[in-house]
Amino acid sequence: MQSLSTRMAAAAADVQALIAAHLSPLAAASPVASAMIYACTGGKGLRGFLVLESARLHGIAYADALPVAAAVEAVHAYSLVHDDMPAMDDDDLRRGRPTVHRQWDEATALLAGDALQSLGFELIATAALPDSARVTLLAGFARAAGIHGMVGGQEADIAAETAARPLSLDQIIALQRGKTGALITWSASAGAVMAGADAAPLRAFGDAIGLAFQITDDILDVEGSAATMGKAVQKDAAAGKATFVSLLGLQGAKDQALALLQTADAALIPYGATAATLRETAQFVITRQN
Amino acid sequence: MQSLSTRMAAAAADVQALIAAHLSPLAAASPVASAMIYACTGGKGLRGFLVLESARLHGIAYADALPVAAAVEAVHAYSLVHDDMPAMDDDDLRRGRPTVHRQWDEATALLAGDALQSLGFELIATAALPDSARVTLLAGFARAAGIHGMVGGQEADIAAETAARPLSLDQIIALQRGKTGALITWSASAGAVMAGADAAPLRAFGDAIGLAFQITDDILDVEGSAATMGKAVQKDAAAGKATFVSLLGLQGAKDQALALLQTADAALIPYGATAATLRETAQFVITRQN
Repeated sequence: MQSLSTRMAAAAADVQALIAAHLSPLAAASPVASAMIYACTGGKGLRGFLVLESARLHGIAYADALPVAAAVEAVHAYSLVHDDMPAMDDDDLRRGRPTVHRQWDEATALLAGDALQSLGFELIATAALPDSARVTLLAGFARAAGIHGMVGGQEADIAAETAARPLSLDQIIALQRGKTGALITWSASAGAVMAGADAAPLRAFGDAIGLAFQITDDILDVEGSAATMGKAVQKDAAAGKATFVSLLGLQGAKDQALALLQTADAALIPYGATAATLRETAQFVITRQN
Repeated sequence: MQSLSTRMAAAAADVQALIAAHLSPLAAASPVASAMIYACTGGKGLRGFLVLESARLHGIAYADALPVAAAVEAVHAYSLVHDDMPAMDDDDLRRGRPTVHRQWDEATALLAGDALQSLGFELIATAALPDSARVTLLAGFARAAGIHGMVGGQEADIAAETAARPLSLDQIIALQRGKTGALITWSASAGAVMAGADAAPLRAFGDAIGLAFQITDDILDVEGSAATMGKAVQKDAAAGKATFVSLLGLQGAKDQALALLQTADAALIPYGATAATLRETAQFVITRQN
């Protein structure tokens, strides 16, 4: 079998091709459509890959799961486009290229993000899956993306920058459950929802790797370089923000990530050998270099 | 029967109460949640009212349609919050009050808009309607909101401000079909979708009043005052933008709105007397003062 990174890259290419096929007819006349395609290009595609792997685990055809994978990547891309804007993180670099508002302008970035969110919902609503699966996926997706999930976590993250005292570990865990965890957990459990199967084990898996993902992000923010990360690093320390590293120390954060990897592995026991790729993916989450 | 404005105000109050009930538990700790409630308050609630009336026409219970009405008002509110931001129209006043980014800040406005879009999808996905109805509603909602609908129209509107020549009438009609028409048409036909009935007549009705709505907006931009409109007026003429008034003249625009009212009335013929309120609503669309 091909290496995990090769398979992830192939899935990411399929996701990007699906989104580009959807938007290319508009792109000649619409900078916003071009910016949407641009924003969905160049990422690792972790969330989409989790959708596809959890679908495979439940016998869902790759082609049927692909629009759902594209949906979560579209919404993830929207969140990055908006987070990078001057009103938020004011970043110039993302995935090694200019951010959307630098490549185009702020109005284009705002609209591209808005339309990418709509596109995510459209892709799930029109997927070739049973109505009941689509409705359940959409309800969870909306909650994971909104004020109870990603946006709520983003708000808490911004508030932490100006808070009188640094966040506690519990507060950071809650923040990250929203900011990055909710969408990762949704992605990891999407295949079970598609098949109408019990999603609890994959949700536990997703919770563990979602948190491990963020801890690794904090470690990479200290240890990584802008060249490998493709974005600015060491912004958290410069801003005096509490991170998993500032609270647990570098070694403590690494130990915590390893413990979460074991939790993730244990959650996959019911699936036996068929979950080998998800196990590898969990390993990837904490060993990645960007 | 109570007057149309009384009934619309009552429906708008129900929609606002449903959204507030959803978000109030968060509002104490979350300025974004507070801003979401604020953004959904004070509007006429036309789109939500169209949802409720088209649902009534098809025998759908008011309580079952109400979350769908709230969904379209949440997405409409998100579009206003983002459109008012400095990167877009840079408006200070909306519905007679400070815009969200003036009342809070740009980051809060960006996130509140983003989360309002998610909320719209969540409210439909969790409504007490058949799965097939929810899926069809959501697919149409996503398309009406996104790059093929509202966002696409918004992009065309911004592009028109810096275009070398003013738009033609056909171009303005296409722009408005996206910017305001798509969501109004979706709202007017939502009841038929909920009931699994033929939505074509209500779509024709929605198309006509959507365009009439925008023509009336252009007329009010010339004839109205900031006091009655609750927002800045005469911005289009100041910006040298083509509008229905600049292209057709004031009387020509009024004649066109009346012709569309007749089209809207004709589309309602299949529903007979039960569509009296929708007829009144169409009348309201072109006679409103704000």
